[in-house]
Amino acid sequence: MSPPPPNEDDVISQHDSSSIPQNRPISTIVIIIAMQTEALPLVDSFQLTEDLNSLFPIGTPWVRYHGTYKGLNINIIWPGKDAVLGVDSVGTVSASLVTYAAIQALKPDLIINAGTAGGFKAKGACIGDVYVASEVAFHDRRIPIPVFDLYGVGLRRGCSTPNLVKELEFKVGKLSTGDSLDMTPHDEASILANDAVVKDMEGAAVGYVTDLLKVPAIFVKAVTDIVDGDKPTSEEFLNNLSAVTLALGKAVTQVVDYISGKSISEL
Amino acid sequence: MSPPPPNEDDVISQHDSSSIPQNRPISTIVIIIAMQTEALPLVDSFQLTEDLNSLFPIGTPWVRYHGTYKGLNINIIWPGKDAVLGVDSVGTVSASLVTYAAIQALKPDLIINAGTAGGFKAKGACIGDVYVASEVAFHDRRIPIPVFDLYGVGLRRGCSTPNLVKELEFKVGKLSTGDSLDMTPHDEASILANDAVVKDMEGAAVGYVTDLLKVPAIFVKAVTDIVDGDKPTSEEFLNNLSAVTLALGKAVTQVVDYISGKSISEL
Repeated sequence: MSPPPPNEDDVISQHDSSSIPQNRPISTIVIIIAMQTEALPLVDSFQLTEDLNSLFPIGTPWVRYHGTYKGLNINIIWPGKDAVLGVDSVGTVSASLVTYAAIQALKPDLIINAGTAGGFKAKGACIGDVYVASEVAFHDRRIPIPVFDLYGVGLRRGCSTPNLVKELEFKVGKLSTGDSLDMTPHDEASILANDAVVKDMEGAAVGYVTDLLKVPAIFVKAVTDIVDGDKPTSEEFLNNLSAVTLALGKAVTQVVDYISGKSISEL
Repeated sequence: MSPPPPNEDDVISQHDSSSIPQNRPISTIVIIIAMQTEALPLVDSFQLTEDLNSLFPIGTPWVRYHGTYKGLNINIIWPGKDAVLGVDSVGTVSASLVTYAAIQALKPDLIINAGTAGGFKAKGACIGDVYVASEVAFHDRRIPIPVFDLYGVGLRRGCSTPNLVKELEFKVGKLSTGDSLDMTPHDEASILANDAVVKDMEGAAVGYVTDLLKVPAIFVKAVTDIVDGDKPTSEEFLNNLSAVTLALGKAVTQVVDYISGKSISEL
């Protein structure tokens, strides 16, 4: 007798198995955005104001912009500039910390992690495309010990949003996360194993925290550079950042407009 | 006229520039340990008890063992087992989250990050050696954009402990952190650039958070495997884990014995 096949649901956590009621209208949203350049078009779009008295501990550079928009309590959380170096606090450590701190302080009904990403043309991605991630996983946490290997990959599903992606005509695909902007051959092999169409530096870390704390999460990623193209990632990223953040801002505004008045189960 | 040479203190944060008084006796210590196997000898040594009511949010697997030992309020924080996979929550994301949450909940005077590590024989490391890290940095956060590259490396100094390391005859060296147990050629180049003698999966993440929140941090790392040797890391790590955790436990007990009755500035 052969053992039963493993049930995928046993090893992939789902964000939509939230402890909050699935059919109550969404009220409070936290939008996690790693770079100020990505955040500011949305701060304008939702007419948010920056907190003068931080919710967060002294010493943290984390910034909250907040306000009310179409009946929703909107909070954009940006991890801020590194105090010594002055650059945006990108990557998984900062993203996980601000996600945790924002959930503790604001008890949101929904997290949106929005940002730019690299895309794979072999999977159909083009500059300016906006993807909603069906799944998130890490590609730079290789722990070659049984079960620890799966922990390292950290595969998690995004909140199920079939109506939202159909109505707004977003592309849907898998997101792979790592702390480097470039891609080594080992990263590439893991990204292929993750079957990812987009690659970022925060998503799976946000997903880890939202899964722990049972807050539904949606990942919206706009493509700034083609990873499997012929241009260096950092150059292409910087050249397209400004234009693509406008596309990202438009997409996140559409998502929030769609969410207004709906419950998680209606998305 | 040439510009003045950069002052190293401008780009390296120091944990000993704490906001707590440097000359008040240390009272509360938080010891961050990633694996239960590493934590249990110390739980025994200090006769700590596990919290029945967690300090931490529902959903987090984080475990606190606490008690009083030689006049010190000792807390061992272990990030616990992954709820789905059942393995220790190793790596930078979990380590940064528990460090943040433990500092918020317990306001410690000092953090000790204790754990096992890989050592480089080319730098003099042997199995069972215990190192106190002079500096911590990341080796798997490559962001090839000016200044972001330095942010990715995330170099920080450990708390200055000249008397402690002299008295206890510990080796002192630099620690490099990454989320993988193995080492790719890219990782190796970054570890060499970091001038590291030991390599772990948490230290620089703990250092990032303790630096943000201005809590002095000491990093105590015991060598389970030789990275630049001829045995596979995962095999050597698992074979030596049990014996080396005893050496680690002895070392951390010596550190805590030494700390008892002293202030940060006396270490």
